Amino acid sequence: MKKMIMLVAMSLAYAAAVAAPDDATLRDQAKAAGLLPIPPGVPEVAGNPITREKIDLGRMLFFEPRLSASGLISCNTCHNLGMGGDDNLPTSVGHGWQQGPRNAPTVLNAVFNKAQFWDGRAEDLKEQAKGPIQAGVEMANQPEQVVITLKSMPEYVERFSRAFPNEPDPVTFDNMAKAIEAFEVTLVTPGAPFDDWLEGNAAAMTDEQKQGLALYIERGCAACHAGVNFGGQDYYPFGLIKRPGADILPPEDKGRFEVTGTASDEYVFRAAPLRNIALTAPYFHSGQIWDLEQAVAVMGTAQLGTEISNEEAALIASFLQALTGEQPRVEYPILPVETADTPRPDLSALPLPAYME
Amino acid sequence: MKKMIMLVAMSLAYAAAVAAPDDATLRDQAKAAGLLPIPPGVPEVAGNPITREKIDLGRMLFFEPRLSASGLISCNTCHNLGMGGDDNLPTSVGHGWQQGPRNAPTVLNAVFNKAQFWDGRAEDLKEQAKGPIQAGVEMANQPEQVVITLKSMPEYVERFSRAFPNEPDPVTFDNMAKAIEAFEVTLVTPGAPFDDWLEGNAAAMTDEQKQGLALYIERGCAACHAGVNFGGQDYYPFGLIKRPGADILPPEDKGRFEVTGTASDEYVFRAAPLRNIALTAPYFHSGQIWDLEQAVAVMGTAQLGTEISNEEAALIASFLQALTGEQPRVEYPILPVETADTPRPDLSALPLPAYME
Repeated sequence: MKKMIMLVAMSLAYAAAVAAPDDATLRDQAKAAGLLPIPPGVPEVAGNPITREKIDLGRMLFFEPRLSASGLISCNTCHNLGMGGDDNLPTSVGHGWQQGPRNAPTVLNAVFNKAQFWDGRAEDLKEQAKGPIQAGVEMANQPEQVVITLKSMPEYVERFSRAFPNEPDPVTFDNMAKAIEAFEVTLVTPGAPFDDWLEGNAAAMTDEQKQGLALYIERGCAACHAGVNFGGQDYYPFGLIKRPGADILPPEDKGRFEVTGTASDEYVFRAAPLRNIALTAPYFHSGQIWDLEQAVAVMGTAQLGTEISNEEAALIASFLQALTGEQPRVEYPILPVETADTPRPDLSALPLPAYME
Repeated sequence: MKKMIMLVAMSLAYAAAVAAPDDATLRDQAKAAGLLPIPPGVPEVAGNPITREKIDLGRMLFFEPRLSASGLISCNTCHNLGMGGDDNLPTSVGHGWQQGPRNAPTVLNAVFNKAQFWDGRAEDLKEQAKGPIQAGVEMANQPEQVVITLKSMPEYVERFSRAFPNEPDPVTFDNMAKAIEAFEVTLVTPGAPFDDWLEGNAAAMTDEQKQGLALYIERGCAACHAGVNFGGQDYYPFGLIKRPGADILPPEDKGRFEVTGTASDEYVFRAAPLRNIALTAPYFHSGQIWDLEQAVAVMGTAQLGTEISNEEAALIASFLQALTGEQPRVEYPILPVETADTPRPDLSALPLPAYME
């Protein structure tokens, strides 16, 4: 009985938070706020026509640990396709068990972002793909070494030739990145409850999720988190109204300032894309918040200058759950066998095994 | 012209090495030597009836990094299904980037081994699966913590209930291991050229491979490396005739002696299974030899007390290539999303990120 009273009290609290309008009105509001469904078909990208051969090659390269110096770390290590396209760690772990400075963004739907990385320093996915491979704290490799590795395996040479026909020297670092981009544009997650609802299926979202959507628009979340990806479209200071604590916003990481050198870009980051956000805790570039409702509340204080109540945060988080789409089903690739010419794994950063000490 | 003369000379050398008998005779010899094809169907294992529900659950667990303390390392990290079921490293890298003492054996066809690990310390795959999860240098986790992790995610609880029906408490460390075993018994590689040839397709192996097979039997390789897995059936001292150097046989690793405590088990190891051996360099428990022909030559000296010539080693290695079967095609699993109750990744062994130093 006590439980029932609590439930009724909670329902009243929810009802008080916001009265969601009828479906047709809410749909109009969502569209007016720029909230878009995942478009059908494989997205097109500039300067890289997508072919089946490129996608298949890119799938192999995405799961290829020999793109890293150690032979142990692949794109999928930090952008795990079974875990929402990220690693569910605060910040990623790379070569020599070093911890990177920022939380790994999801690769899912990344093609719909305006630019890549938290600070937008890569224009597109093919540019992005080159970064972690070379970063000392991530895969710690060199482009020349990657090309030597790929050229050492006849199956890769053949697959690059087919993916990049009529090129005299198809196995290049650039073409590797283009193939990875071709695979990554297929990593989209249509069919989220929100998308179904937007297309007219009133039952696809719960009443709570509709209330959450109404709040999401009303409170101003959609001002920064809109478009196909509910974010990923522009840059904003983290702490626009009130700067969060150093745990959430480490003072040494100045965000986009490190890319542009412009003073006004200090602590500026790309608004996080929110599709599949329920799958990709922990949150923010520092990866210190595991709870989605808490993350919503932080956003209210830091970005909107408004106190979002627990009940409202729960409703908005409930709506954000409706952005979880169908996860890509991918066949795990069989990779080419190395040859005598394949560079050996560089484990030089390793401590010696016990018997060699 | 010079090249042609060399080729002729090489052919003569090959011919001199061994004259392969006709196919029918060679088949009889192979069967008499105990060389067996991969049996059809899903293998049965003791105490663990294989069901579709268990296999599907086991596939998720095999790729589940949250079975490790760090949330980063899964079974597939060291037993990569895209790379012959191992990691192509000398010895595996685990928690905190520690290097383990031995080369990771392939998971492919492992069900056909008499026992698991280089020293046979696990009776079967379900026993084996529990080892690396708890090993401090590998996944560094604890059974209790694994169960807490799995029980924290409703989808796992549901899947364990379906895989282990009528059990009052299906989410256990033992059942986790049974599900992994159920998936692993499906990781077999039929259709190798040798198997096709044994079944009567004379063209499935080249003449060189048939010469290599004849040598493999004649020189005594099949005495230890026979059965379905061409090995994995019994234990032998490494250095039966002549002990290899410390690079190949590190003196501190006494092999099966550490399991049995019996003096005669010093430097005794399970004969390596040779199916898909061409995919799983580097070789031996120390993982120090990358070249298959060199590994064959080492075996001749150490185990057979015979000098295997370069030409003979090339023929035998050519035959071993015929043991590469069809690699398992596996859909990459979509894993359950963590909850507030899921233990957080333990990255305590990590150095602090730069901005926190």
